[in-house]
Amino acid sequence: MSLSFNKKLELICQERNNRLCLGLDLDPEKLPSEIGNDLDSMESFAKDIIDSTISFCPVYKPNLAFFERFGSKGYSLMERLVEYINGRAITIADGKRGDIGNTSNQYALAIFDTIGFDAITVAPYMGRDSINPFINNEAKGAFILCLTSNASASDLQFSKKNDNFLYELVVGATNPTQMESLRKISSGLSWLIPGIGAQGGDLEASISIGNMNGVGIVNVSRGILYAGNGSLDAIVESAQNYTNQIREIL
Amino acid sequence: MSLSFNKKLELICQERNNRLCLGLDLDPEKLPSEIGNDLDSMESFAKDIIDSTISFCPVYKPNLAFFERFGSKGYSLMERLVEYINGRAITIADGKRGDIGNTSNQYALAIFDTIGFDAITVAPYMGRDSINPFINNEAKGAFILCLTSNASASDLQFSKKNDNFLYELVVGATNPTQMESLRKISSGLSWLIPGIGAQGGDLEASISIGNMNGVGIVNVSRGILYAGNGSLDAIVESAQNYTNQIREIL
Repeated sequence: MSLSFNKKLELICQERNNRLCLGLDLDPEKLPSEIGNDLDSMESFAKDIIDSTISFCPVYKPNLAFFERFGSKGYSLMERLVEYINGRAITIADGKRGDIGNTSNQYALAIFDTIGFDAITVAPYMGRDSINPFINNEAKGAFILCLTSNASASDLQFSKKNDNFLYELVVGATNPTQMESLRKISSGLSWLIPGIGAQGGDLEASISIGNMNGVGIVNVSRGILYAGNGSLDAIVESAQNYTNQIREIL
Repeated sequence: MSLSFNKKLELICQERNNRLCLGLDLDPEKLPSEIGNDLDSMESFAKDIIDSTISFCPVYKPNLAFFERFGSKGYSLMERLVEYINGRAITIADGKRGDIGNTSNQYALAIFDTIGFDAITVAPYMGRDSINPFINNEAKGAFILCLTSNASASDLQFSKKNDNFLYELVVGATNPTQMESLRKISSGLSWLIPGIGAQGGDLEASISIGNMNGVGIVNVSRGILYAGNGSLDAIVESAQNYTNQIREIL
């Protein structure tokens, strides 16, 4: 029997003693000039970043928009990055997909089966039907958008199967008070917490509250990718710094 | 000066005396066996459908999920279909994209600039910031998800620029009463009305209410693509039948 996504995430986070999710939102226009701004350069730079961080970073999250921007060529670059990680870390497709059931079905096939991501971010706007296709397979994860600024805790409906929750939550890091009350009612659910770094979220609150009764991983994208002079060294140093801070808080 | 999207849509709908939007949600598993279920067959079948309907059909709407399902190869097929239509009809990217501003920006680049779609469907879950990048360019359209079953009319905020609304609405066809009250407060906005055909929406109400004070196009996907024995003849006949019904109601 294969492990549930929730368990896989928990194990790799424990093993690497880390809760960092590195957001791969590569924008060639913002890369240092010596890298080059073509797709080939972007690919080898992304692989360098992965190689230099995967020993301590448990989760990578490509943002689909940044690949789709380059059409099918960018889409296929994203496929190659997931293939390159090849199970050595958890991969989350940040696509905020969500549609009626018939269409969400196709998105689940695209993300989980065709590309082979471990998890996806899902927009719940179209209701329960739009989420179901993403939570049929316990080995795969679905982080449901649940912005704290919008969150009405009592509206959330948690589903369980064999005592495992069937989906996980995206909870913005910008409001610790809301995070705390949401954490109480989402016991056991894994959290993906964006907003750290460029967006000014609170790392200490995110790690403490997020890991109170479940795994809470914090995503940093721009805060790492464009650190210092944007060189590979500066990126790795920043990822290592976040990791050190996370380990201290844990 | 180039025409606004809203005007382009109005003109082509008038010229073809039609309000049909043909949803290109091709599922090779559901195509007739003589077509073949590989991507090459899907491409030539899709082009045949376009060739046989474009004289009377003003709008085509590829559903991105059905292309992403095949990874970058499917994504590039979608690109070729938009290129094939090449401005002879309006193209809408049905992707329900929506994220924070920084990411929505990349989606707008992907859909409008890289692929060249005329319009996109957008999920408003993340608020106004997530919509802005799609409505900067008047020549391009953004249909904002506005399901009647969820619609709280007073929550909707309509923006105008030089007396043109900056975005359009997706309004489900399953509740005529809600459609009617929503039509009153969205005067001038173009509507994209899904739910006709397989989902049982009311064509007469959709066309009458949808075109009361603005252009309302109705989308049919499965109801046309899987009509009769699923052959090209059956598909064209069904598209023509919907067109005849629409013309009668108009």
